[in-house]
Amino acid sequence: MTGGRRRSESSRLAILDAARDLLLERGYERLTIDAIAARAGVGKQTIYRWWGSKGAVVADAALEGGLAPPLVAPPDTGDIEADLRAWLRDWTSRLASGVGTSLILALTAATAEDHAVADVLYERFTAPHEQLLRDRLELARVAGQLGPQAPVPTIAGVLIGSLLYRVLSRQEPPTADDADLVVRVVLGGAGG
Amino acid sequence: MTGGRRRSESSRLAILDAARDLLLERGYERLTIDAIAARAGVGKQTIYRWWGSKGAVVADAALEGGLAPPLVAPPDTGDIEADLRAWLRDWTSRLASGVGTSLILALTAATAEDHAVADVLYERFTAPHEQLLRDRLELARVAGQLGPQAPVPTIAGVLIGSLLYRVLSRQEPPTADDADLVVRVVLGGAGG
Repeated sequence: MTGGRRRSESSRLAILDAARDLLLERGYERLTIDAIAARAGVGKQTIYRWWGSKGAVVADAALEGGLAPPLVAPPDTGDIEADLRAWLRDWTSRLASGVGTSLILALTAATAEDHAVADVLYERFTAPHEQLLRDRLELARVAGQLGPQAPVPTIAGVLIGSLLYRVLSRQEPPTADDADLVVRVVLGGAGG
Repeated sequence: MTGGRRRSESSRLAILDAARDLLLERGYERLTIDAIAARAGVGKQTIYRWWGSKGAVVADAALEGGLAPPLVAPPDTGDIEADLRAWLRDWTSRLASGVGTSLILALTAATAEDHAVADVLYERFTAPHEQLLRDRLELARVAGQLGPQAPVPTIAGVLIGSLLYRVLSRQEPPTADDADLVVRVVLGGAGG
């Protein structure tokens, strides 16, 4: 590794650390590229050379800096309703911390404003969580707890999308009751 | 109105027109504050004086510039399943145009990155659509097409959130089949 490359890697890490710390301290809304540059001791242009937007820096900071929630599979007690409730309630508690909601809003902004970042975030953050949920739903389908033709990918998307919409539209985390209602609608149906 | 106030209003309108036109021409991702300023013939600082972010300008441009989809109530044929399908399919066709997806991504970015913009967008854009959907669901509940205790606000959020998540995670509009599957899960339930 050349000295230049080493300096460059240390700047990159300083920027990611600064972005992570500032996100925790002040939240996404009040986070600026200027503040990240000042904290990291680099010029603003250095940040723009590597990242196209604030969201892109924050996405990398979350993925590399250990902010992103850990990958935890839904429980498998054999009761799909109880397990989905537990999984969704677990997410609502994670979101209920300031960091949780801030982080999801930050990752959503990054996704919505930059196509390339969206692909990376989907692949590295969203898809692994979604896959664990699909796996649990598929077990339930095979066990006869869902209809034999239940559209597992759609159900997973409905569960995740409901929580996400709740965070976006209210700018606050869903409650445990919200989580229970979503599971009730998705498993039991609203009809008849 | 003083000359200064008049100039100021004409700059504001020029900025909103420029933002709307550029969004149509190149999409949200390649839209910059610099380009809006150049097209509108104002300084960049004039834009930052009134709006805190690109998303905030685009939100106003959408709301005032007629880009936002018209408020159309779900049909009421007396068959809630057919009516929800028609309503969701209608949204998928709107989203299928480049502008539709671009616009929803832009409004989502604006919502996720700025708390104050989020409130305005929810009140002026999202809530009116959501209310029409809730009204239709409430009619169905009263008519016995949904369960007597069906949680109407949750159901509306589940339907909207599912489509939104689909757009965000795939960066492309849902299909008519996606819409039908979501309605099937939400009305019929995935269980048993």
